[in-house]
Amino acid sequence: MSLKVIDHKVIYRGRVFNTIVDEVEYESGNKGVREVAEHFGGAVVLPVLNDGRIAFVYQYRYPLKEYLYELPAGKLEPGEPPEECARRELKEETGYDAGRIEKLTAIYTTPGFCTEKLHIFIARDLKDGKQQLEEGELGLSLKYFSPAEAFDMVRRNEIVDAKTIVGLFFLEKLQGA
Amino acid sequence: MSLKVIDHKVIYRGRVFNTIVDEVEYESGNKGVREVAEHFGGAVVLPVLNDGRIAFVYQYRYPLKEYLYELPAGKLEPGEPPEECARRELKEETGYDAGRIEKLTAIYTTPGFCTEKLHIFIARDLKDGKQQLEEGELGLSLKYFSPAEAFDMVRRNEIVDAKTIVGLFFLEKLQGA
Repeated sequence: MSLKVIDHKVIYRGRVFNTIVDEVEYESGNKGVREVAEHFGGAVVLPVLNDGRIAFVYQYRYPLKEYLYELPAGKLEPGEPPEECARRELKEETGYDAGRIEKLTAIYTTPGFCTEKLHIFIARDLKDGKQQLEEGELGLSLKYFSPAEAFDMVRRNEIVDAKTIVGLFFLEKLQGA
Repeated sequence: MSLKVIDHKVIYRGRVFNTIVDEVEYESGNKGVREVAEHFGGAVVLPVLNDGRIAFVYQYRYPLKEYLYELPAGKLEPGEPPEECARRELKEETGYDAGRIEKLTAIYTTPGFCTEKLHIFIARDLKDGKQQLEEGELGLSLKYFSPAEAFDMVRRNEIVDAKTIVGLFFLEKLQGA
């Protein structure tokens, strides 16, 4: 697509995302604006216990003022490989160390205006440990559901987080369901 | 969760999202910052042709500088009911009028920092018509895949858009696969 960037403004540099406003010119000579939430990506983990159940985090989401069921996840530290981030976030949010970890996919959460890319992993052979929550995560609790229960929760709109549903889609495919 | 908002700043009011930075106080008295991309939501359509194939849009995504396969989607106009938005975006991006349209779910695309909620619909009995693209969408083209092809594209990481994968998950469940 032929699109010329004629102005680039960094409106805000945040800890989670930067706000960018670009002015662009189309082939016709007409101009437009592109607003971008610049995010540096993260990792997501689908932790499968030896009995087949999945560990979810149930946490308060400030933007929504709601509690959601989600897979453990978090932002990449600068230069951090996605798998390392996945292991770190799993440990911090659930206490588990992953014996085996395997990449499922990487997704864009909302590509129309945001650069966020999430690397999704499945973790098995979990070893119990101690959660290491940050103060802002103290409302977080762990919940365990079987894959069948989780799929039902998606259908009943009780699991509504996009990355979590994508992880479950892959789990089902792996199971050959 | 006990969290007091002690400062609320609107850093930028955009056409797609607003940038909000709040200062919050935890129960302990410690303070933190919450950055929020305030988005007013949208609708997504999974258009199923009479022969069972799905209509995708293949479009350039400015934030990523990449082309992606996605389900047709767009932002809610102020006060617009999600179903109306779904029908409008389907018409604009693909030309199709939906004979029947049915809600599948509503998801949060990235609830850690963004309020965006997407209402996902399935559309059938499609009637051909004329696309009505905006100038910024002129790179958009239509692509048709069977559900089986689309599921394979998800597995091969050729479909990487979260809302699109969520829509396909529901389609598979509806088919009882």
